[in-house]
Amino acid sequence: MEFQHVSLAQRILFGAGKASAHIRLEVNRLGSRKVMVIASKPEHHLAQATLAGVNVALWWDDVAQHVPLERAEAARAAAAQAEIDLIVCVGGGSTTGLAKAIALTSGIPVVAVPTTYAGSEATNMWGITEGRTKTTGIDDTVLPVTVIYDAELSRTLPTKLSISSGLNGLAHCIDSLWAPKADPINQALALEGARALSSALRGIVDNPADLEAREQALYGCYLAAASFASAGSGLHHKICHVLGGTFDLPHAETHATVLPYVLALNAPAVPEISSRLAVALGRPGPLDSDGPKDAAAALNVLYEELDAPARLADYGFQASDIPEAVGRILAVAPPSNPGTVTEESITGLLTDALYGAKSFPVLCTVD
Amino acid sequence: MEFQHVSLAQRILFGAGKASAHIRLEVNRLGSRKVMVIASKPEHHLAQATLAGVNVALWWDDVAQHVPLERAEAARAAAAQAEIDLIVCVGGGSTTGLAKAIALTSGIPVVAVPTTYAGSEATNMWGITEGRTKTTGIDDTVLPVTVIYDAELSRTLPTKLSISSGLNGLAHCIDSLWAPKADPINQALALEGARALSSALRGIVDNPADLEAREQALYGCYLAAASFASAGSGLHHKICHVLGGTFDLPHAETHATVLPYVLALNAPAVPEISSRLAVALGRPGPLDSDGPKDAAAALNVLYEELDAPARLADYGFQASDIPEAVGRILAVAPPSNPGTVTEESITGLLTDALYGAKSFPVLCTVD
Repeated sequence: MEFQHVSLAQRILFGAGKASAHIRLEVNRLGSRKVMVIASKPEHHLAQATLAGVNVALWWDDVAQHVPLERAEAARAAAAQAEIDLIVCVGGGSTTGLAKAIALTSGIPVVAVPTTYAGSEATNMWGITEGRTKTTGIDDTVLPVTVIYDAELSRTLPTKLSISSGLNGLAHCIDSLWAPKADPINQALALEGARALSSALRGIVDNPADLEAREQALYGCYLAAASFASAGSGLHHKICHVLGGTFDLPHAETHATVLPYVLALNAPAVPEISSRLAVALGRPGPLDSDGPKDAAAALNVLYEELDAPARLADYGFQASDIPEAVGRILAVAPPSNPGTVTEESITGLLTDALYGAKSFPVLCTVD
Repeated sequence: MEFQHVSLAQRILFGAGKASAHIRLEVNRLGSRKVMVIASKPEHHLAQATLAGVNVALWWDDVAQHVPLERAEAARAAAAQAEIDLIVCVGGGSTTGLAKAIALTSGIPVVAVPTTYAGSEATNMWGITEGRTKTTGIDDTVLPVTVIYDAELSRTLPTKLSISSGLNGLAHCIDSLWAPKADPINQALALEGARALSSALRGIVDNPADLEAREQALYGCYLAAASFASAGSGLHHKICHVLGGTFDLPHAETHATVLPYVLALNAPAVPEISSRLAVALGRPGPLDSDGPKDAAAALNVLYEELDAPARLADYGFQASDIPEAVGRILAVAPPSNPGTVTEESITGLLTDALYGAKSFPVLCTVD
């Protein structure tokens, strides 16, 4: 047992319907006199309601995906001009990303109020795009000092998007179990995230307006981001980056589709953590002694309940793409991956994922 | 689901036989030029070996329990005189406590190298004693910036002390599940701590020199301290403070003895977390579907395997002390405690703990 684990300093304020009160609490606690609020145009109204009672010095809505450099520069200049001492960002990953870009060069603290399951609010990673090149980095300065989670703000996220976004979070949890910097603390947080997310997604499918399920989803995605930021990218993420980057497959759906096959490859090589993951993925409540003991089988049960994305073919991936994808994946696969990574095993994995052949142990025993 | 959770910034460097290398890494990373080393006389030799290769500006061995103010003042003056820019403390809770006392007034960063399972290294709590009065407080300045865990340094801790000290850690984990500031993140860390500690203590009883078990114990006690510092004192700790403070019972043994009875009182009121605790307390490996599903029963099994402290009568507590203890406990019991706290229930709890009547559900069903 040898590891280095870094805990980052952050306050998490969690409560449905509490965003307004929690924002006022933080503005006062931090003694801020010049607040800048970042929220995209579609979320301006929501942000305004949420910031009720706060004296806002500067509203900013020029938000775009991947944080283009010229927009970051404009926002930085405006913040300096207005002598901003606190940024409150209300929105998804792009909004949080812009707040981080300002914090990176100015050191102005950020209070993040996420409205999606993106998770950027829980990491010290930033990204800025110049032309077609995205530069990313790690700097504790960009970590929001406080995150305010309010499930009311994500209540209207469509069910299909909630599922694929939540499964993307689950993929972060599961990949954190064996990523290059995986450690027992990351693993504990990742397993707790997997528990919360599987319970949340079952609840959202049952009733998309279920506030308790929305709370579990937010909480699970926070843990997913925190554990992934610490553990780094494992095999699953390397595969998805190749499929997204080279073959232009959609982000969340690709993650959701590939996850069961990576788990099926790796779980037998890490039986103890796999057995703990199986418990986390099962239905909550008293120990389900009749449920699957195997993590891959447990994930399969969850996927069936969620009618989750299942075939890469649905997103334009073709059998003829597999050899190139395999070559690119082998070049970037982490040497520490627990399952055996070979041309044969990755070809098999992608072939199964292409048409949704669920090669899980629970089905194998039936064959 | 409503909570506030504060994550503290800290680096954990974990590895058996790595303390020396990790200390050098941190001294370099922090750019320190004037290191003060605190280690009590009995641990001076160990500290010297561990600090090999580091240019130490000041050695300090005047360490005493509960950090007497005059000793703290002397150490502070010496640190200022020598222009110390980093404190490395090697030892147990008293040694870490003295380092924290210096950090409190000077802001000098601390690197803690624990040799026991005390856990103070993972908290932002300090304590200083003037005469017979101990003042305690919370200040992020005293949190060690880095903790270096090396199981080699605790390898010679006697088995009996390891068990009672480890069960004290387990009490911190379990009390964190329902303490006043308990939240899901604390609970996840506390359950992971309970898992590590129950596995560790089984291993130490089997073979006191088992390095892997010692590692699990250190790791579990770190999580116990981190979750307890965040969650605050629950019913268990209030009871033990009364028994220790008013009746002068020994610290770790009292905690170990009382724990099963508090768990038996509270577990039925929190069935979901109790079922997760039962899994954590069970033997590791594939899901043990034949093991106890109930946390109190699972703890009972663990206690029998460990031959753990079982009777308050062994430490001088008497039946005639119970009424006064009950009165004092009722005055300080947290209103949020999940189990019912009444004169009757606490009298029953102490009566059971006095002679070791294990009133656990698993035994009740036999009756």
